[in-house]
Amino acid sequence: MKTIRYRDPQDDAVQLGLLEGDAVYSITRQVPQWTEPLAMWYALRALDVSPAHAAAKLAEGSAVSYTQLQADGLLLPPVVSPEVWAAGVTYERSREARNAETTIKDNVYDRVYTADRPELFFKATYARVVAPGKPLGLRSDSRWMVPEPELGLVLSAGGELVGWTVGNDLSSRDIEGENPLYLPQAKVFAKSCSFGPALLWNTGGEQPETWEIELVIRRDNAIAFEGVVSFSQFRRSFAELISYLRRDNPIQDGTVLLTGTGIVPPDDFTLQAADTIEIAISPIGVLVNRVEVPLEMKVTSI
Amino acid sequence: MKTIRYRDPQDDAVQLGLLEGDAVYSITRQVPQWTEPLAMWYALRALDVSPAHAAAKLAEGSAVSYTQLQADGLLLPPVVSPEVWAAGVTYERSREARNAETTIKDNVYDRVYTADRPELFFKATYARVVAPGKPLGLRSDSRWMVPEPELGLVLSAGGELVGWTVGNDLSSRDIEGENPLYLPQAKVFAKSCSFGPALLWNTGGEQPETWEIELVIRRDNAIAFEGVVSFSQFRRSFAELISYLRRDNPIQDGTVLLTGTGIVPPDDFTLQAADTIEIAISPIGVLVNRVEVPLEMKVTSI
Amino acid sequence: MKTIRYRDPQDDAVQLGLLEGDAVYSITRQVPQWTEPLAMWYALRALDVSPAHAAAKLAEGSAVSYTQLQADGLLLPPVVSPEVWAAGVTYERSREARNAETTIKDNVYDRVYTADRPELFFKATYARVVAPGKPLGLRSDSRWMVPEPELGLVLSAGGELVGWTVGNDLSSRDIEGENPLYLPQAKVFAKSCSFGPALLWNTGGEQPETWEIELVIRRDNAIAFEGVVSFSQFRRSFAELISYLRRDNPIQDGTVLLTGTGIVPPDDFTLQAADTIEIAISPIGVLVNRVEVPLEMKVTSI
Amino acid sequence: MKTIRYRDPQDDAVQLGLLEGDAVYSITRQVPQWTEPLAMWYALRALDVSPAHAAAKLAEGSAVSYTQLQADGLLLPPVVSPEVWAAGVTYERSREARNAETTIKDNVYDRVYTADRPELFFKATYARVVAPGKPLGLRSDSRWMVPEPELGLVLSAGGELVGWTVGNDLSSRDIEGENPLYLPQAKVFAKSCSFGPALLWNTGGEQPETWEIELVIRRDNAIAFEGVVSFSQFRRSFAELISYLRRDNPIQDGTVLLTGTGIVPPDDFTLQAADTIEIAISPIGVLVNRVEVPLEMKVTSI
Repeated sequence: MKTIRYRDPQDDAVQLGLLEGDAVYSITRQVPQWTEPLAMWYALRALDVSPAHAAAKLAEGSAVSYTQLQADGLLLPPVVSPEVWAAGVTYERSREARNAETTIKDNVYDRVYTADRPELFFKATYARVVAPGKPLGLRSDSRWMVPEPELGLVLSAGGELVGWTVGNDLSSRDIEGENPLYLPQAKVFAKSCSFGPALLWNTGGEQPETWEIELVIRRDNAIAFEGVVSFSQFRRSFAELISYLRRDNPIQDGTVLLTGTGIVPPDDFTLQAADTIEIAISPIGVLVNRVEVPLEMKVTSI
Repeated sequence: MKTIRYRDPQDDAVQLGLLEGDAVYSITRQVPQWTEPLAMWYALRALDVSPAHAAAKLAEGSAVSYTQLQADGLLLPPVVSPEVWAAGVTYERSREARNAETTIKDNVYDRVYTADRPELFFKATYARVVAPGKPLGLRSDSRWMVPEPELGLVLSAGGELVGWTVGNDLSSRDIEGENPLYLPQAKVFAKSCSFGPALLWNTGGEQPETWEIELVIRRDNAIAFEGVVSFSQFRRSFAELISYLRRDNPIQDGTVLLTGTGIVPPDDFTLQAADTIEIAISPIGVLVNRVEVPLEMKVTSI
Repeated sequence: MKTIRYRDPQDDAVQLGLLEGDAVYSITRQVPQWTEPLAMWYALRALDVSPAHAAAKLAEGSAVSYTQLQADGLLLPPVVSPEVWAAGVTYERSREARNAETTIKDNVYDRVYTADRPELFFKATYARVVAPGKPLGLRSDSRWMVPEPELGLVLSAGGELVGWTVGNDLSSRDIEGENPLYLPQAKVFAKSCSFGPALLWNTGGEQPETWEIELVIRRDNAIAFEGVVSFSQFRRSFAELISYLRRDNPIQDGTVLLTGTGIVPPDDFTLQAADTIEIAISPIGVLVNRVEVPLEMKVTSI
Repeated sequence: MKTIRYRDPQDDAVQLGLLEGDAVYSITRQVPQWTEPLAMWYALRALDVSPAHAAAKLAEGSAVSYTQLQADGLLLPPVVSPEVWAAGVTYERSREARNAETTIKDNVYDRVYTADRPELFFKATYARVVAPGKPLGLRSDSRWMVPEPELGLVLSAGGELVGWTVGNDLSSRDIEGENPLYLPQAKVFAKSCSFGPALLWNTGGEQPETWEIELVIRRDNAIAFEGVVSFSQFRRSFAELISYLRRDNPIQDGTVLLTGTGIVPPDDFTLQAADTIEIAISPIGVLVNRVEVPLEMKVTSI
């Protein structure tokens, strides 16, 4: 079962929707209190109703088109995540990539790669997250910015894995590269994160270790960069990341944990205004965001 | 299925509870978003889960004792009702009783009894409702006050009959009797209404026309008044009352509609401070409230 | 000092505004927590700052035009009133008018006119109030509906008179006339009340006893009815109405008490769809509402 | 002017209070909407009322004793801070101290000390902050934990300096020392932050550069550590820290920015359960917290 969140084309009200192919059925119109998936998740669990059974019951009434919602800019993040956390150095390739960002010997990335404790950091509040289809923002004081395409885990307050989404941990490589102590500034800023478009519910039968994640960056009608990585190269387990995240650190329902990136553009690549970033994990969907065009550039371009 | 609302003895948090015999199972601990019954009602309806099936799943974990909750003063109204409305002159006996309150010829009560349109009035906001077990307040400017024991209909915003509860439409007979235009003042005041203790869910199989409602008023360890009436004497249908209530008048989820009283104490009876009022409808439960003792009486009695 | 509430033409955010002539200065942009006047009223009182001094400080920055806000349908009720209450039979002429609605001897209206206790009734929740400029709704089951132009008192929870506004207690005369017990149905329904456009703050120097209230009803570019009454004909005091309203009946900040009408159209007059109702009290402003055109009439007119 | 927040001893309601000597005057009882200082700050600014004038007006009615509130555990953080951020390496001594935590050559702390860009990190959400007087929590997986006594800046959404408070950025030195990438885990955890007890309002006349901050850690009725540092040793300006914090990073009203520590206990010192930590900045007050005693230790000690 896949769910999305969106604004109703008629009255702008927030809707939780069931996504089947291109059809989106409003769940909220059937259960007004269900505007986000966690409320529904707790109910299904307590009533011992499977997501498949729920989906069969909720695919009812007239549907709207997902493609149309996307075209009209009406998609919302698939879960209200009070906090987004992220992991780093979880793939072989990410270790190599980040080596290049720093000149420190006895490299901090090498060490975290082999240590028991993973790198975990606070990435964003919900206010800093942009919805699928909405523009991401570049830091005005960075010259080297990249998307980080990641699998996102959607968690309950109890640490249960509610499901998966596609995430983008937009990052400044020059600010982080200057000093690891600048990591929070390289990671946390306005419009620095997006995830979606859908939440794929965890029913126990999914096999994320067989999935791939693909990144395509488009610029001026050409592909500026593309890459793909398989989760078979993932060097941590989800359970381990969740366990460290929750050590002495209570999380809330809907927390998203981004699991780190395994795709790194070459060192001479940086995002530019108006680039389009597409991140796909095929069982979940494609997260599309453009890069924001600063106001002064818009004025100049007239 | 019967549900109640209460404060958790441990942490004072509002709980929706499943009531089975004397056992109360917290539903809220299983589904944190379900602190009131309407959220659950919409979910069961959308998932096509029967209340009986839900009750079987939710009767889980450790239970608290209803008797203990009642003794500790932890019960809450079984539904958050933004508005309580009430009907009048719906039983043969209520017509007669109210005749006596007024000297107007071509009696207003006679006429409403035989008219198509029922008497309906705004009774209370949730802030004016006292929980089961909490004291009701007498108007300081009335000398003749009576409880009105009534069956309460719990409604959805769409007018569906979610279930039933026991209600008390505490009223001033002298203020209303002086002039029908004073009805709002005779009916709407602080602590003028109570309903509960439980919500009996409408599953289609209940037969309210076979129920009886009993009133017992205790004073100084004796019975000051008791009465009983059968719903077979009810002269309107629930559907008709709901239909008139909703004419050009949108209601909200959880609205309670009290259906009028058929038990009227004799004309020389008035409630006194410290009286205990018990109203029972056996499939639902017994609503118990004392009459508040004004502060100055408490001081005097020392 | 006069304040209004409105939606910002740019971002639709609710604004409390200072009204000076046609200029509206956003107070909310200066104090984000002040989106309604009671918060500001408490602050001025506690800091011992006069409304005149506050107005001088707050008339700052760029202003929007009241006329434009009105034309764009952006006005809101000048106070968030959780409850609107109303009084009746407070003018000589209202007594006479309502005589005609009923055939009961020993008339209930005559008696309330001469009694100590005024008629007071629950008129509306905020959800049933329409903003200045928005359409009022006629009851579908009434054939005789009239506006009731009234001075509205804006009250604090403590019963203090925060200020005045212009109110319209839209009423069904045939439903009330059929039986006084139907008063709640004649008074409480969707879109049955409006007040505004401004709140005139009580600074102690206003003289409402010298004010007049005027009603003009326009239909098809002609005046269908007009009337005027002076507050010198008012037969109760505001203090007395407030005192009765609060007897054993706690009110909330922002409660509006409509004080009854002294203008009654002739018995053959009833409102029609698309009528425009203008009610003016010159120190406060003109409250304008149209009468809603039912959906089926709109369709027919194509 | 100094304000605190606390729970009313009578009804547990949240109060904003004016602190004068040991006397606390409830501001909230005079202005119900003022339960936190930012609402009041915006109002004073818009009305051009000085804090001194406001304090004179608000010091009214009966007062409660600050000492008593503290003894009864009723203090709250002086501002609701949606986010707490912190700076590091802002004093000469902190640079030296943190050198010892790591073996990396070309030290990251040395470099940040001399760089234009300060170290800034996300420290806590309001849920992770404990009130003055409440116990701080040690990470269960750290063996080396220290308080970091810091001056806290209380900011408006626009970056204005509303005032100052005393803060404690409780930190794990071994986790951070193992790898700078572990900084978020060394800093962000349950009960990892406290600030208070008061907010000293910025009136333009305060001279923080002349203040000192003192730390006393008590254990078993003895002083386990004490230290003091003068703000004259502070190597950044507040304006610079605020400016970097807000670069491409919108903050909310009430954000607290801790400005880094200049007091570092010796390397063999670590906090223990039941230690008492006192941090004083004399114009503001003394922030006192104990270190939480884990449940298993409580059981053992019986």
